[in-house]
Amino acid sequence: MRRNPLIGSWAVIAPERANRPADRRVSTQRSSPAACPFCPGNEASTGQEIARLPDPNGLHAWGLRVFPNRYPAFRIEETPRSRAAGPYDMQAAVGAHEVFVETPLHDHPATATRMVELRNVFRAWRERVRDLQRDDRIAHCVVFKNEGVLAGATLEHPHSQLIALPVVPTSLVTECTNAREHYACHGRCLVCDMVDWERSQRERVVLESADAVAFMPWASRVAFETWIVPTRHASHFERDADAKLAAVADMTLRVLVRLEASIPQLAYNLLVATAPMRDAERADYHWHIRILPSVSRQAGFEWASGCHINTTAPEAAAAWLRDLDVAEPLP
Amino acid sequence: MRRNPLIGSWAVIAPERANRPADRRVSTQRSSPAACPFCPGNEASTGQEIARLPDPNGLHAWGLRVFPNRYPAFRIEETPRSRAAGPYDMQAAVGAHEVFVETPLHDHPATATRMVELRNVFRAWRERVRDLQRDDRIAHCVVFKNEGVLAGATLEHPHSQLIALPVVPTSLVTECTNAREHYACHGRCLVCDMVDWERSQRERVVLESADAVAFMPWASRVAFETWIVPTRHASHFERDADAKLAAVADMTLRVLVRLEASIPQLAYNLLVATAPMRDAERADYHWHIRILPSVSRQAGFEWASGCHINTTAPEAAAAWLRDLDVAEPLP
Repeated sequence: MRRNPLIGSWAVIAPERANRPADRRVSTQRSSPAACPFCPGNEASTGQEIARLPDPNGLHAWGLRVFPNRYPAFRIEETPRSRAAGPYDMQAAVGAHEVFVETPLHDHPATATRMVELRNVFRAWRERVRDLQRDDRIAHCVVFKNEGVLAGATLEHPHSQLIALPVVPTSLVTECTNAREHYACHGRCLVCDMVDWERSQRERVVLESADAVAFMPWASRVAFETWIVPTRHASHFERDADAKLAAVADMTLRVLVRLEASIPQLAYNLLVATAPMRDAERADYHWHIRILPSVSRQAGFEWASGCHINTTAPEAAAAWLRDLDVAEPLP
Repeated sequence: MRRNPLIGSWAVIAPERANRPADRRVSTQRSSPAACPFCPGNEASTGQEIARLPDPNGLHAWGLRVFPNRYPAFRIEETPRSRAAGPYDMQAAVGAHEVFVETPLHDHPATATRMVELRNVFRAWRERVRDLQRDDRIAHCVVFKNEGVLAGATLEHPHSQLIALPVVPTSLVTECTNAREHYACHGRCLVCDMVDWERSQRERVVLESADAVAFMPWASRVAFETWIVPTRHASHFERDADAKLAAVADMTLRVLVRLEASIPQLAYNLLVATAPMRDAERADYHWHIRILPSVSRQAGFEWASGCHINTTAPEAAAAWLRDLDVAEPLP
């Protein structure tokens, strides 16, 4: 990991990842399940299994598998090292890079997914973060999902990833600073304030339940950006109990069903926003899920300014999803 | 412009930009010059011309044209307004959004470009920034170029853009903070330190001249990321004289020729990194050009962490470009 002190963010230099099976730029063809390393029958072609969960549909030998990424950006075998390199900083990329195959089914859209399946995925994420937390060289775990070639997925079989890092990533440090300043100024959690305001305004709320709310933030960076937030304040995803994870998982699936029905060939990035793993419970940070559909590329203006140009107002996008007539997912 | 206080960056909500001619996701086909609004003969289909330069080759009525973007993200006609929106901030998108058609030729790769042509582009950028500076509602101008569909270009005729903003963009605020801290600590400009270190290490330097150096930063975020830096310290691009701009323009073109020869169907973002327009000359900020080839998409990990995974070591990329046997551009 190398840090540019002017920009303030880390780059992971990982030439071995250039050998991944699919070049994300090249192919939009569907691959065949027989050749898919994530399909049942090809288990031997993945890394050593870390965990598995049974198939809730009782049809396959497993319902979810976790194993190390074959082309890891971070490795548990590295020795922690930090040094200067001229004006730059260097850190050994100590950590972990794990893959969660979320279903035995190669083609498995959100519309065909049961709530219990995504609940299992959320629980599997949580258990892996809890396990990795025992390694004190790891400062934070980033959980994310790339769905579709446009979102940067190299394999189409539904899967998510966890990257454990030796540092708290730059953007989370910035968010914590902003959240802390808001709390110091107002005595309230910033995300709680955002939820309160979006619920009072209503026009950007997509779905609500007793325990979770899905809304498109007033300052959405991309079209159909959606945040799914537990209504009761809690700073750490991995410390929450089954029931609360389930409420957020269910609402996430209901949002994904609506996005799939709205955007042809939906591609998206999903991420878990959560407080730095080693922090004590924080009154100023509030975990949630963010879904960012891949509708436009980062171009020169975004690189130069950190600003985003979003051609779809969140009010219009939220109204669209709210008014959709879709079948709710099965339990 | 709406600001998410947790993330700290601005989103421009611009639904009218959804009407642009090409959907950047859809088409990789070449368009025909007859249908291109930037080609000679179609001048009436662009906005009112702001500036033009003669064709250095003497073949066409003009060599470069500047006019307002037809689908502007910022407008000079807006009235400055700033207000709170719940926990968020709002600013009217006062500013300007201009297009620079860099050549009358629809197909005009870097390998066919003369140095005088890119020098003219740099000068045109500078003159537009100087002119817009007279409007005191504008806080900063971002100059950038998207080349190729993968880089977010909606039209293929070579062009660059200028966006004038009512705020200093978030990422530049961060860079200035980092640069100021480095200067406070060491009494030296951070970019000068980076240049000194890269020149002493040599392995990431692509090209050098008396007045400019091109190198791949030690912490390159994407494969073949290249910075072109004037060797003499200066904080503002738009305050530099012709000779210094020309030295950086010439080296930029020499780098682009090498990138074109190395990467099939090269797409890239280019941007001018320069100190906030209203600041007095700064000892801690040093203007330069950044080229970011479009080789991978921003995916979930990048959204979640602000970190980048780069599968090509800058040492390998710089050696590749250095060792290329290519014809140098004509004067």
